[in-house]
Amino acid sequence: MSAPRAWIVTLGNEVLLGEVENTNAWWLARRLTSLGVAVRRMVTSPDDEESAEVFRDAIGRVELVVSTGGLGPTYDDRTMYLISRALGLPLEVNPRAEEMVRRRVAERGFQMTPARLKMAEMPRGAEPLENRVGTAPGAILRHGGTTLVVLPGVPAEMQPMFEEAVGRLRDLWRGPPCRREATFSGIVEADLADVLSELSRNGRVYVKTQPRGRPGAPAVRILVISFEGLCDDAFSRLEEAARAAGGVPAPSLGDAQGVADADHHG
Amino acid sequence: MSAPRAWIVTLGNEVLLGEVENTNAWWLARRLTSLGVAVRRMVTSPDDEESAEVFRDAIGRVELVVSTGGLGPTYDDRTMYLISRALGLPLEVNPRAEEMVRRRVAERGFQMTPARLKMAEMPRGAEPLENRVGTAPGAILRHGGTTLVVLPGVPAEMQPMFEEAVGRLRDLWRGPPCRREATFSGIVEADLADVLSELSRNGRVYVKTQPRGRPGAPAVRILVISFEGLCDDAFSRLEEAARAAGGVPAPSLGDAQGVADADHHG
Repeated sequence: MSAPRAWIVTLGNEVLLGEVENTNAWWLARRLTSLGVAVRRMVTSPDDEESAEVFRDAIGRVELVVSTGGLGPTYDDRTMYLISRALGLPLEVNPRAEEMVRRRVAERGFQMTPARLKMAEMPRGAEPLENRVGTAPGAILRHGGTTLVVLPGVPAEMQPMFEEAVGRLRDLWRGPPCRREATFSGIVEADLADVLSELSRNGRVYVKTQPRGRPGAPAVRILVISFEGLCDDAFSRLEEAARAAGGVPAPSLGDAQGVADADHHG
Repeated sequence: MSAPRAWIVTLGNEVLLGEVENTNAWWLARRLTSLGVAVRRMVTSPDDEESAEVFRDAIGRVELVVSTGGLGPTYDDRTMYLISRALGLPLEVNPRAEEMVRRRVAERGFQMTPARLKMAEMPRGAEPLENRVGTAPGAILRHGGTTLVVLPGVPAEMQPMFEEAVGRLRDLWRGPPCRREATFSGIVEADLADVLSELSRNGRVYVKTQPRGRPGAPAVRILVISFEGLCDDAFSRLEEAARAAGGVPAPSLGDAQGVADADHHG
């Protein structure tokens, strides 16, 4: 069975302006991969109508969309509105989300305001995800064959809410892809080029080679990842080609930084 | 005159798999902003036909597309091919790029191979960008109203090649946007909500407030950025609202980490 596919959508002008680094997308990419989901695209988009277009593009095309950002009380926090537009669903106060917001606001001694109530507005049919760190709830939405998981942008809020969604969406996860890696000294990437291109052609195995070692003492790291359990065969063929070219296993070089002064430019 | 708009496109399965962090996109976002370019979207896409679609979406829509990754000698390095497909232009060995590759290969004592010659293949009409660190040249392509800058993925190669492109595309740059920031203690974000939503509505000023301080001693950082030189007026109005709500300037809090236990969830 092939892996479910996902898009990660980050809403926020601050990422586009280079004010903050998009650590959420990286965290989600690693976590989704470990759950057996093939991330097909990561998009960062502004807090405006362009993001409705991004959601429209994703729906019906991938099994999962995870978004971060744009759930707060201010005017530029309009992810729920943009998703409503993309799905053609009314935006309305979700009673369970309202209860969550009212409880959090009271616990902190804040006043309930229209801006805070806005955080309970969701597309019709959303299942709210409780925010135990901040105030704005997230949501799970199912639309056709696509599940949307809508999360806030603050990492300390986003991460536990993603884990709650993981618990609720057990059918989606296939478990981690297989993974094999090894480093061989005495060879360069070009020695593996033929096997590599043959293995890459079917699209079911991800194979990457990276230069290691130093000038005059070449080495290559081989990495194989497959969502379809096809690592061992691919790895054996690469290993065979590496040995045929005179390569010697060099596990100690595996973690070395790839040298820029080499032949590869992925 | 409004700012030129850009998309940043990162090609690479290793980013989608969470194997590496996309530091290139962050670096480019900061650099493009400082040059006066409004980054409208960042996309990470696999080394396959989906990326041709991303390039097609961008062309004619924004003034600048900067891509990183996929220029090396291996089978999965096919950015030039994907751009050729997106532009409907033939992919052919570029004589100046071939000269660059041959020179770099000779300098390093490597053999010229078909895989290495592939690095000189570019869409017809491309202007090669020399790679003084690695082997694969980049390119500048002009198509309709869109300029594409095609760069390798290794940061040590990408950054100087981007700077070379900056020198060649002087007409594009408008200079950095204006920027004002200040932190006020004694107020919460909600005190600025009305002014904030009014200022955000026109889309010509980016205004962000962020909680600072600690529980019981609230503070708010205000950040204003505009590509159209509209910072001072927006900033004055926010400052006025902050003072009216009892806020006191607190520059020492400006660099503090935003507390998650607050009301905002950008």
